[in-house]
Amino acid sequence: MPKITCLAGGVGAARLLQGLVKVVPPKDITIIINTGDDFELHGLKISPDVDIVTYTLAGIVNEQTGWGINNDSFHCLEALGKLGLEKWFNIGDADLATHISRTKHLAEGYRLSEITAMHVKSLGIEAKLIPMTDDPFATYIATPNGLIHFEEYLVHRGSSDPVNDVKYVGAESSKPAPGVIDSIREADHIIVCPSNPIVSIGTILSVPGVRDALRETEAKITAVSPIVGGAPVKGPADKIMLGLGLEVSAYTIAMLYQDFLDSFVIDNRDQKYIEAVKELGINILVTNTIMTSLEDKIRLAETTLRSLELV
Amino acid sequence: MPKITCLAGGVGAARLLQGLVKVVPPKDITIIINTGDDFELHGLKISPDVDIVTYTLAGIVNEQTGWGINNDSFHCLEALGKLGLEKWFNIGDADLATHISRTKHLAEGYRLSEITAMHVKSLGIEAKLIPMTDDPFATYIATPNGLIHFEEYLVHRGSSDPVNDVKYVGAESSKPAPGVIDSIREADHIIVCPSNPIVSIGTILSVPGVRDALRETEAKITAVSPIVGGAPVKGPADKIMLGLGLEVSAYTIAMLYQDFLDSFVIDNRDQKYIEAVKELGINILVTNTIMTSLEDKIRLAETTLRSLELV
Repeated sequence: MPKITCLAGGVGAARLLQGLVKVVPPKDITIIINTGDDFELHGLKISPDVDIVTYTLAGIVNEQTGWGINNDSFHCLEALGKLGLEKWFNIGDADLATHISRTKHLAEGYRLSEITAMHVKSLGIEAKLIPMTDDPFATYIATPNGLIHFEEYLVHRGSSDPVNDVKYVGAESSKPAPGVIDSIREADHIIVCPSNPIVSIGTILSVPGVRDALRETEAKITAVSPIVGGAPVKGPADKIMLGLGLEVSAYTIAMLYQDFLDSFVIDNRDQKYIEAVKELGINILVTNTIMTSLEDKIRLAETTLRSLELV
Repeated sequence: MPKITCLAGGVGAARLLQGLVKVVPPKDITIIINTGDDFELHGLKISPDVDIVTYTLAGIVNEQTGWGINNDSFHCLEALGKLGLEKWFNIGDADLATHISRTKHLAEGYRLSEITAMHVKSLGIEAKLIPMTDDPFATYIATPNGLIHFEEYLVHRGSSDPVNDVKYVGAESSKPAPGVIDSIREADHIIVCPSNPIVSIGTILSVPGVRDALRETEAKITAVSPIVGGAPVKGPADKIMLGLGLEVSAYTIAMLYQDFLDSFVIDNRDQKYIEAVKELGINILVTNTIMTSLEDKIRLAETTLRSLELV
């Protein structure tokens, strides 16, 4: 069976992956996940995107929000608030177990990639999930109010600060986690999921060696645009792209990935970019990229795989 | 108003204290609490007796068990189990917030006594709660199966191991927490709560300086027997006392405390010890010491205070 490697951020990626595991044997799928959002809260190590993908593939994600665990309670968070601790990051009670386990095992000397593998196994996931790096890496948003960690910018401050720049703190000294480069080299197909091109995929690409591996691999590489009709399907990609002086369009996504992309899946609403993308030397496939039902996810996963055959 | 200092373990102490704060202004009460049970689980710092007393005086304790928070859920614990972590120590979701806060603040450099004061303030408690020491201190039970931490012996192994000895690890190098010695010296009355004489009160007495302060203070000191009719009201005091070669009786309690005790409250069922206790030079008051209702707790607190007037 062909081996598929995916580059993934949070909710958008997780939705596509939910479809992908239905059309391809999960054991043939490796998912490299952004860790730029990782941070520490109340002494607990939190890896938002790793957990979103994990919970989604385990079938326990809160489908309404896209993050957290379905039907979770928030009694610990309420009690933390009563003790005077910050409660802007919505950690449910069952969700908390993941952070406690991660923090415990990190303190014992395990690496994030090893701990992720433990969690994946415990939750019965067959796909392979690899955090992009085991090293410290933090995405900061440069704003008129100073450098703000991405999760604080996104969740605590509601993406309200003007964006001047994005900083990948730790990128230069980070190494790809074990399996990241090999899974890119050895894949038959690579899918760049519909995730924020700057703070989800951009971070993965900034880990030394990853972008070169994508350029050099013999795998065919496709991407699904996270920008539809000039706006992100979810999240603050528009604010961040605009802050960096980028046009918020599917075409910009193709430009950002053009050095390694073979094929690109865009939404029906973005047909106007077909010719421009083709001029970048990238094949293009147009479809409905909005995923609501599981059927949508499966269909988009199938279409994405089909885009690879165009190459 | 007279100042009262109490020496306290867990559930038995908390019940008496629940009555005491109804008959004496709570701000005049200082409670020195055993920390020999403290341990770390999944990276979280847990102080069982400090929390039992805190939750009880905050009016949020689970009255059925005597520990934990009323109506708490256990979703995190269940999820920890799914991730392969030990779940023998029953941490509820709201309870967890206390351990997260404690662990966070300890990592920031605060002392346990400072953190306890923060929690007490957040929860609206007016009495002063002081852990016996801010230093590492752990009670181990020496068994044929090796040295076992007291909480593991009690909760995980259900007090099933034969007891050969009890070790106070860290006692020699521990210092009383700020306020412990002063509260003994400056008290008008001191109450040794009905707690395990070895692993709750014995630990407090083993902190260098505490026993001497009790012997030297001008405060009148009384104790309520945790042993009624030859058995502990709650907990494994019988197994531990027998393991140390001690008779399981109210009289033994008086013997263990005789160097500082002025007065002693025993149960109606233990009238046979009246003369023997008096021969130790200790006044004695006989009453019903079983606390079920709040009225029981108030009445026993009043009787305990009255025992001090006998001196």
